[in-house]
Amino acid sequence: MQNDTGRKRVIIEGVQPAIDAGRFPIKRTLNEWVGVEADIFADGHDLLSAVLCYRPAQQAHWTEVPMRPLGNDRWQGCFPVLQLGRYCYTVQAWVDPFATWHQALRKRVTAGQEVTVELLVGAELIEVASQRATGTDAAQLQEWVRLLRMAWESGCAERAQLVLEDETLLRLMATYPDRRFATTYPREFPVVVDRDKARFSTWYEMFPRSCAPVPGQHGTFKDCAARLPYIAHMGFDVLYLPPIHPIGQMHRKGKNNAPVATADDPGSPWAIGSAAGGHTAVHPQLGTLADFRALVAKAQEYGIEIALDLAFQCAPDHPYVQEHPEWFRWRPDGTVQYAENPPKKYEDIYPFDFETPHWQVLWEELKGVVCFWIEQGVRLFRVDNPHTKPLRFWEWLINEIKTSHPEVIFLAEAFTRPKVQYHLAKRGFTQSYTYFAWRHTKEELTRYFTELTRTELQEYFRPHLWPNTPDILTEYLQHGGRPAFLVRLVLAATLGASYGIYGPAFELCEQRPRAEGSEEYLDAEKYEIRHWDLERPDSLQDVIARVNHIRRDNPALQSNQGLHFHPVDNPELLCYSKSTADGSNVVVVVVNLSPYQTHSGWVELQLDALGLDPLQPAQMHDELSNVRYLWHGARHYVELQPHVAPAHIFRVRHHLRTERDFEYYL
Amino acid sequence: MQNDTGRKRVIIEGVQPAIDAGRFPIKRTLNEWVGVEADIFADGHDLLSAVLCYRPAQQAHWTEVPMRPLGNDRWQGCFPVLQLGRYCYTVQAWVDPFATWHQALRKRVTAGQEVTVELLVGAELIEVASQRATGTDAAQLQEWVRLLRMAWESGCAERAQLVLEDETLLRLMATYPDRRFATTYPREFPVVVDRDKARFSTWYEMFPRSCAPVPGQHGTFKDCAARLPYIAHMGFDVLYLPPIHPIGQMHRKGKNNAPVATADDPGSPWAIGSAAGGHTAVHPQLGTLADFRALVAKAQEYGIEIALDLAFQCAPDHPYVQEHPEWFRWRPDGTVQYAENPPKKYEDIYPFDFETPHWQVLWEELKGVVCFWIEQGVRLFRVDNPHTKPLRFWEWLINEIKTSHPEVIFLAEAFTRPKVQYHLAKRGFTQSYTYFAWRHTKEELTRYFTELTRTELQEYFRPHLWPNTPDILTEYLQHGGRPAFLVRLVLAATLGASYGIYGPAFELCEQRPRAEGSEEYLDAEKYEIRHWDLERPDSLQDVIARVNHIRRDNPALQSNQGLHFHPVDNPELLCYSKSTADGSNVVVVVVNLSPYQTHSGWVELQLDALGLDPLQPAQMHDELSNVRYLWHGARHYVELQPHVAPAHIFRVRHHLRTERDFEYYL
Repeated sequence: MQNDTGRKRVIIEGVQPAIDAGRFPIKRTLNEWVGVEADIFADGHDLLSAVLCYRPAQQAHWTEVPMRPLGNDRWQGCFPVLQLGRYCYTVQAWVDPFATWHQALRKRVTAGQEVTVELLVGAELIEVASQRATGTDAAQLQEWVRLLRMAWESGCAERAQLVLEDETLLRLMATYPDRRFATTYPREFPVVVDRDKARFSTWYEMFPRSCAPVPGQHGTFKDCAARLPYIAHMGFDVLYLPPIHPIGQMHRKGKNNAPVATADDPGSPWAIGSAAGGHTAVHPQLGTLADFRALVAKAQEYGIEIALDLAFQCAPDHPYVQEHPEWFRWRPDGTVQYAENPPKKYEDIYPFDFETPHWQVLWEELKGVVCFWIEQGVRLFRVDNPHTKPLRFWEWLINEIKTSHPEVIFLAEAFTRPKVQYHLAKRGFTQSYTYFAWRHTKEELTRYFTELTRTELQEYFRPHLWPNTPDILTEYLQHGGRPAFLVRLVLAATLGASYGIYGPAFELCEQRPRAEGSEEYLDAEKYEIRHWDLERPDSLQDVIARVNHIRRDNPALQSNQGLHFHPVDNPELLCYSKSTADGSNVVVVVVNLSPYQTHSGWVELQLDALGLDPLQPAQMHDELSNVRYLWHGARHYVELQPHVAPAHIFRVRHHLRTERDFEYYL
Repeated sequence: MQNDTGRKRVIIEGVQPAIDAGRFPIKRTLNEWVGVEADIFADGHDLLSAVLCYRPAQQAHWTEVPMRPLGNDRWQGCFPVLQLGRYCYTVQAWVDPFATWHQALRKRVTAGQEVTVELLVGAELIEVASQRATGTDAAQLQEWVRLLRMAWESGCAERAQLVLEDETLLRLMATYPDRRFATTYPREFPVVVDRDKARFSTWYEMFPRSCAPVPGQHGTFKDCAARLPYIAHMGFDVLYLPPIHPIGQMHRKGKNNAPVATADDPGSPWAIGSAAGGHTAVHPQLGTLADFRALVAKAQEYGIEIALDLAFQCAPDHPYVQEHPEWFRWRPDGTVQYAENPPKKYEDIYPFDFETPHWQVLWEELKGVVCFWIEQGVRLFRVDNPHTKPLRFWEWLINEIKTSHPEVIFLAEAFTRPKVQYHLAKRGFTQSYTYFAWRHTKEELTRYFTELTRTELQEYFRPHLWPNTPDILTEYLQHGGRPAFLVRLVLAATLGASYGIYGPAFELCEQRPRAEGSEEYLDAEKYEIRHWDLERPDSLQDVIARVNHIRRDNPALQSNQGLHFHPVDNPELLCYSKSTADGSNVVVVVVNLSPYQTHSGWVELQLDALGLDPLQPAQMHDELSNVRYLWHGARHYVELQPHVAPAHIFRVRHHLRTERDFEYYL
């Protein structure tokens, strides 16, 4: 037992947020707040004081903010995060004898009890505090000591009233508390602070090789640059490119994943590496590294960042296979174990053997790959299949990178089991792919987004919604036609602060699967060059532009907080709202989930959640159709025709003019 | 980075049960099981193996039991606790390359793929395992290696079928796993194992001084001994005595808490200490220490244990005040700060100052008090107001005592705020008083007992239910007459595995409050000697005996597990069941919560929870009235008259004879 252990009477527990008891960080973006709660109590009835302590991780000095009791021994405090990188926080609390004494004095005086000795007890407390104070504070406190001692000597208990009425004394005493026996929570809780794009981003995925103006030609980075105005028009701020590295020749796949390729087949960009180079090289047909850097710079002019794919795997002719055979798993017949998920085989891809005794060199090499592309100006990485590489590796890599580059964002393409997907986020991934593509019904969407935004997940898992990817063409999109694409667009763009589409397949409503019951595209761009007619009259490009414009205009849609579902008496109609914390921006979305039929029903708005006055009308401005409605009270009829407009995206305006606004009404 | 860190691919998290991430122990009684779950997963698709590791805390050697997957990466295992004291447990898991290989081989064979190289891969895995094995196991494994190598050389892939069909190989390989890169959860979780009485006990509280056969006389320990047959008849197994120490003379309270006592007033037993001695002395009018030991021994003959009151506070004339003034808080006027909760004053009681710099000596002294009474044969302590002494003190004291005496039970009289009450249980209290006395409605009881038995609380908080105490005469008992006492008796005895009554006030339905709106007894025994007519015809002693008999007969009532509430369409009727884990004992209780009116309604039994077949009748044996009913299906009519029998306590018998049981039916 340490000498003062037994005198520390305050208990602190249940500190929240805390991911696995503080083992993993929560996530915030710049200038957001961290609200912290804790159970704080002691034996007996003494009053307590508590502070929330926080600091940027690289600073030694703690900043303190007072915590306030919420009732039932729960306390709360909050602090803003004002710089990128890591913060940490903890809680300290102590018994406050002066506040206790002050409260008891008030009760005694109210009960008409004799209090002269009490004044002397108070004088002692103030005197000790005055020794912790300096300057005029110390002098003021000393003066109180003198007054109270005089009151005791003269038996003049009216002083008590004076003490009770004086706010300065309470404030001064709170400034110089006795914290010798304060309890500090034994753990510091980490926070990772990212830039805004970690919270709010709009991604467009595109195969550069399909960007050539002439059908059949191999597109280049220069062709990508020419595509930028089109992408910017639609309102995207990230252009994500599948791997841009040399593609292996050995075991290259043909069109539609054919096991044997013809001489013309370009192969899958994810089969990385050939004699032309590996993960730090550029596929020669796309251009040069300089061309790539030029693309990054050009995109910047359009407010677009380039995101690269990190696919840590090798084609059989990747230079690593010769240079570092110890990074691969060799079979007894002298071949390398290719990727497979029996009975499926991916002969064009060799996975790294992360169980190699040489794992440290491998880890450093892969870190080097990331650093290389950071040097080329890339700050966004979409990580391919992170769940097939060790989870501890990612924690190490992401920490290493973010220590010097806290602005880097890692998006996990973690289409795997939920515990693994969420764990990748704990280990450090900034954003993550989700199961959104497979959530279609009202029940599924409500349950899933409630889980993502109302549980502990909201603290560390940032969902990124993709209605389609080069690998995922859902049956809903295959069969629902243009309305299905519209519905999924609106859902992705308004349920998630970050979403993306794989285009031009998306805006051109490409819906042919490779086979009945398959979720793969027919003639998938993964295995061949496609040419797209971007200016087709049925393209969704203008609707997408409109939706993304709405996202930029409405801060409520730029965060995953503040999502609330509202009942509708038709299972095909989904209604939800998103609000900023201060209530200054409120968006209500109503979607007809059926791409086939017109549906109508009665929405029952939860006015409390919207901050709406049930007695005041609200203006519902459908920013999709630019029509304005006046809604009074909670129940409203809605009707949505899939082929006209399958959704409303209402911006809610609380205040409407009434006769009371006329000057003469006053 | 340690040399193998990067090769440990398995992640273990979400281990349950875990109180505050393992900071505090869960509780069990002897021979109970600890079921442990954890999220266990790794990158990729490899199969994993996991073991639950446990040991008595004083042993270094871990015992392992396999864990099995429950789906969604959740795993489960369990172990029994076979000795008193502390256990700990943790979880270890690893990637299992052989099981992975075996599963893949099956898929390859099913898909008709070429597998000869696979056989060689398997042979390598088996060979390495054979080096970990010895004796015939090693030889058997070596034989497999030989067979598979032969199969490879001869291109004879039919061996694969043999491998797939052989259970011995799988079992042998599971016996010698490669655990070099196993992940062990970084924390060991503690368990406290108590004796059965910690889980199941039936307490009777009684003032010894009120036990004299002649009215007005001061009762003695010998009088208490004469009362034992009466207490045993009612079926109690614990007799709890308020403090038995000398009572202070200074500031002694008079009848009904009068601030000044007359010469005849015996004072409150909680005002401990006088010239006659302190916490290790016996109040002279009760007898001698030898008399007390004789009572302990006599009680044992009746199957009754004596529980003492630990009230760590002093009367002003307690010897400690002279001998250890440093343990008290002195006021500037030279007086000691008496207990108070402004404006209430308890001048007959001085609290210890646990913030004293001499806290270590004080802690040791108080431990000495407990040790003293353990030496006199006491193993049960009811701790008075533990929430007014530091929480860390209790953890230290209880650990110190239980290290040498794991059979000791501490019951916390923690009538305080919920977080503090629960925290005392975390810190080590074996059982705790609850808010039961103030939970009366169906809603209140259902919610409270769901919280106590279906949340994490069930792991460390053992509720002890008291319908009354010397300080608590609820309004329900004041106004509800005999039926109210019966209702509260049945609720306490069947909702809680541990309960107690303060008698004879309870069985004699003492219901006069000191004042309207007060919960204190008129002429409370705390301040005066009472004489009770135990043989009054309206005494509840026989009903209590019956109820306690039912508790002894039905294991389901001896645990707080297995409680389930069933809907009834009348808010005054409460229905719940308790079942043993194996379903061998099921009790259904229906209570009319109104002590005034007859109530009837339809019970909707949740047959699943009871393990009842909806197509088979069940015999419902009301063990309170000894009437048997046949119930078919879920819905049943019940009607309860408060003045006849306000409750059913049904023992459910699943199997009933039908014609199918006749021999000739076969």
